[in-house]
Amino acid sequence: MDIGMIGLGPMGGAMARSLMRAGHRVSVFNRSADKIAALVRDGATAAASPAAAANGDAVITMVANDAAVEAMVTGPSGIVAGMRTGCVHVAMSTMSVALADRLTEIHTAAGQAFLSVPVLGRPPAAEAGKLFLMAGGAADRIEAMRPVFDALGQRLFVVGERPSQANLIKLCANFMIFSTIEQLSEVFALAEKGGVAPEAVFEILTESFFSAPVHKNYGRLIVDKAFDPPGANVHLAAKDTRLILQAAESLAVPLPFASILRDRFLATEARGEAELDFAVISRRAAEDAGL
Amino acid sequence: MDIGMIGLGPMGGAMARSLMRAGHRVSVFNRSADKIAALVRDGATAAASPAAAANGDAVITMVANDAAVEAMVTGPSGIVAGMRTGCVHVAMSTMSVALADRLTEIHTAAGQAFLSVPVLGRPPAAEAGKLFLMAGGAADRIEAMRPVFDALGQRLFVVGERPSQANLIKLCANFMIFSTIEQLSEVFALAEKGGVAPEAVFEILTESFFSAPVHKNYGRLIVDKAFDPPGANVHLAAKDTRLILQAAESLAVPLPFASILRDRFLATEARGEAELDFAVISRRAAEDAGL
Amino acid sequence: MDIGMIGLGPMGGAMARSLMRAGHRVSVFNRSADKIAALVRDGATAAASPAAAANGDAVITMVANDAAVEAMVTGPSGIVAGMRTGCVHVAMSTMSVALADRLTEIHTAAGQAFLSVPVLGRPPAAEAGKLFLMAGGAADRIEAMRPVFDALGQRLFVVGERPSQANLIKLCANFMIFSTIEQLSEVFALAEKGGVAPEAVFEILTESFFSAPVHKNYGRLIVDKAFDPPGANVHLAAKDTRLILQAAESLAVPLPFASILRDRFLATEARGEAELDFAVISRRAAEDAGL
Amino acid sequence: MDIGMIGLGPMGGAMARSLMRAGHRVSVFNRSADKIAALVRDGATAAASPAAAANGDAVITMVANDAAVEAMVTGPSGIVAGMRTGCVHVAMSTMSVALADRLTEIHTAAGQAFLSVPVLGRPPAAEAGKLFLMAGGAADRIEAMRPVFDALGQRLFVVGERPSQANLIKLCANFMIFSTIEQLSEVFALAEKGGVAPEAVFEILTESFFSAPVHKNYGRLIVDKAFDPPGANVHLAAKDTRLILQAAESLAVPLPFASILRDRFLATEARGEAELDFAVISRRAAEDAGL
Repeated sequence: MDIGMIGLGPMGGAMARSLMRAGHRVSVFNRSADKIAALVRDGATAAASPAAAANGDAVITMVANDAAVEAMVTGPSGIVAGMRTGCVHVAMSTMSVALADRLTEIHTAAGQAFLSVPVLGRPPAAEAGKLFLMAGGAADRIEAMRPVFDALGQRLFVVGERPSQANLIKLCANFMIFSTIEQLSEVFALAEKGGVAPEAVFEILTESFFSAPVHKNYGRLIVDKAFDPPGANVHLAAKDTRLILQAAESLAVPLPFASILRDRFLATEARGEAELDFAVISRRAAEDAGL
Repeated sequence: MDIGMIGLGPMGGAMARSLMRAGHRVSVFNRSADKIAALVRDGATAAASPAAAANGDAVITMVANDAAVEAMVTGPSGIVAGMRTGCVHVAMSTMSVALADRLTEIHTAAGQAFLSVPVLGRPPAAEAGKLFLMAGGAADRIEAMRPVFDALGQRLFVVGERPSQANLIKLCANFMIFSTIEQLSEVFALAEKGGVAPEAVFEILTESFFSAPVHKNYGRLIVDKAFDPPGANVHLAAKDTRLILQAAESLAVPLPFASILRDRFLATEARGEAELDFAVISRRAAEDAGL
Repeated sequence: MDIGMIGLGPMGGAMARSLMRAGHRVSVFNRSADKIAALVRDGATAAASPAAAANGDAVITMVANDAAVEAMVTGPSGIVAGMRTGCVHVAMSTMSVALADRLTEIHTAAGQAFLSVPVLGRPPAAEAGKLFLMAGGAADRIEAMRPVFDALGQRLFVVGERPSQANLIKLCANFMIFSTIEQLSEVFALAEKGGVAPEAVFEILTESFFSAPVHKNYGRLIVDKAFDPPGANVHLAAKDTRLILQAAESLAVPLPFASILRDRFLATEARGEAELDFAVISRRAAEDAGL
Repeated sequence: MDIGMIGLGPMGGAMARSLMRAGHRVSVFNRSADKIAALVRDGATAAASPAAAANGDAVITMVANDAAVEAMVTGPSGIVAGMRTGCVHVAMSTMSVALADRLTEIHTAAGQAFLSVPVLGRPPAAEAGKLFLMAGGAADRIEAMRPVFDALGQRLFVVGERPSQANLIKLCANFMIFSTIEQLSEVFALAEKGGVAPEAVFEILTESFFSAPVHKNYGRLIVDKAFDPPGANVHLAAKDTRLILQAAESLAVPLPFASILRDRFLATEARGEAELDFAVISRRAAEDAGL
């Protein structure tokens, strides 16, 4: 298929390469041009604008935040203005439920197809085509995009007909990750103060009932204090936590654990550690315990 | 080996049978006598007192709470009074860190051997010899008890030289379980109010990053609202939460997530639901969301 | 002085009357025209637009929320477009710190004077000229407005040179009110379950160390369960809580108590009680206690 | 009246002097003898034991904690063993609801009279006879003790027939104090980071809606960072918080604010600041804000 890829950060770049390896033709666009050259060397075509990248069978957006998505979608050279008839906009970055609803309206009003398909997984999984994908939108549209999703992920979950439902579940998954970090951080602090090394606790937990990737990956980061360079930094996680709380607020759902995470992220920003990996919030439980 | 088993509830009874299947000779004691008969039919010998059960190579205690442990250990017909030279007291029920420390003192003062080896797993795992065991105490004593532990569990973790350290880690594991229930409860409430069925969320989570037994077992209970009959009830979990908070308090470790769990358990007791499975605390997040 | 009053709800209407009683000439504007007539009968002049109301010495805005403030300020017939040279915009409603900063920029860019002077007190206090006023902005401008402030309030506090600082302190005061309600609610629930009537606790607290208006006014509402008709409803308080949390987030300040309030307000909205007085959140602590 | 006073710390000593000034005859007992001499110089009689101090019309206990109360009450030379017929035990220190219930049972079984009358106020108020007293027990007994209470306090509140109800309300009052400190701490942190000095916020709050002694006294300590020497230290406040949570647990009442206070006190102990005035927990909100 002919795919436009907008956003060439670590995730978007890896996804573009996975698509090309699977035989798709990929045209790429990025706000800062320097990342385009590398992809062109790998076989991609440079698109002059978001609109130009939307001239094929699908255009994927994988950018930093809500504002960046909106910048790519709107305006005279944006996706909506330039989308070819038959092209589908597949929004894959983490964004707010509210924005996903707004994009749905915009594309629908323009008679265009829109899917929201956020992913679980970091850049190495994107490179290996091993992401988990959560798809929201019309079932037949999702089915038609199967070749694209197969190239990117190990598993596709169809969430619901409303595109934003996929974003809600993606935010739930991130909330699971963040709160697992807090769980583990409290446990490590308690065990360490009781004389049991975090490494030993890590082994006991991850080799018994707590053996999920979320436990192993983030538990490892915390035990090793491996926060620099970050896989994803505190700013990003704090932003996602804000999106979770906003979604919960508009649905009138109290989330006590999420409120604690919010405070952990704010305290971490206040201490000037916001550029580190978000697992660094484990320092808060440790500090509060006097470690 | 000759093993005394004190406490024949669902866990202790299953463990006694696992020991016999592995070829050990088991004498049993229980405060209410009715449970003894069934074990005797299965091949056990009835012991007349805790002291009598401590007349072999090891005596295991698997009783309901701190008070029950103390009742078995002290007094004229208690374990300490009657323990054969060479016998080891292996305390396997969930108890407070403080009591484990006190038992260590008592046995040490009496020149007796003591191990604390709490377990992870419910009765079916005990029946199948598939428990996870966490052992605290002298390394050589633990090693000498291997035949017993092999009959009971799929895996033994050696935690540390101080017996109570195993109890601390067991409490940490329970805290992980309870807080995972709260995590999932908040996520299910949010997703359901956003129009996504808990069943769908359960599948996405447990088949991606959140695939540990703790996610699958407790997520399933919550999605199915399968709280009656209870695997373990709210009273028991509330008691464990109290033990966690006490241990944390004596070590000066704040645990914000544990405080939220405490309130969830209290609110559940206040609503008269304390006899249900402790996963019923998921109703609190649902109610707060107006579901 | 010649004063324009924009926003004639219970607060704005009472303030307009207080100003007239003190001898000021008041022109009034309100989005829904029905409230204008009553004020005109009381001696005010009707203004045709926000711009027209800004044709005197000062124009006061006292409207429901950020969006309403912006609607009055911007546009071809808004305050900025029509403000007479020498007129000062005095924003007195509760609004976000961010909007106060934006208004400061807008007015400064237009060469216009702007003060932010939010108030503490409900409509009867406004009617009696007994509000507390917190003023942010240039000290000389604040001084020049003294005759206006004297007509409205019993006390003026000068907060700082940046107008939004007054809004921050106003939000802090609201946070103090909301969290006092939660304090009292938890205490009443605990005492009542222990057999001591809330009325008795109320007397002991308010006649000893806890004798502030905030204790007496809100404690009375809770004890009497007097939530309907509302002095101010849950929607309004939830909105203010959101503004507090937003201000705290942009300054990277964790506020654990505010997070609990957020959840109380959300749970109250989820139960369909959002039209009641915001002191109704006291029901949450009572319900959680099984009362 | 003939009064025994047991416990001659800053509070008990001041109370003994207030009683003597009002014309009562006071015999005194203290575990460490050094404090007795000063009171004898002031006109008191030394009692040889708690029993000896219970040989008049009333014996008051004002000691550090539950264990100290029990030590004074039980044993061969304790109050119960030596109490004169007609003497009333008036327990005035802060203690657990559970202990108050136990003392009620013990005295009732011995055919003795018992009142629980905890106080609000620090040593200077005790010296001046300006305490607030909360009385639990039989109404006629309380009435008969009026001359004693009049000498000690500015106001007596009769709480209920069960002595422990007075202790519950006393714990509620302490919870109000601690949570007011947290409220103020969060507000000061937020305001300060927004550029408004705590002193200014203190003035605005305490001269408007938040003018209770609890606001003024503790707000002042926080603004001045006057934590050393302590009025009462963190250990004491942490102990009281534990008593509140225990009382709430046995009544099945969730107290989210109290849980946050618990964590604040634990974090403060973990940082080695437990000997300072308990208002030092204000540092936690400040630190979390990066101040």
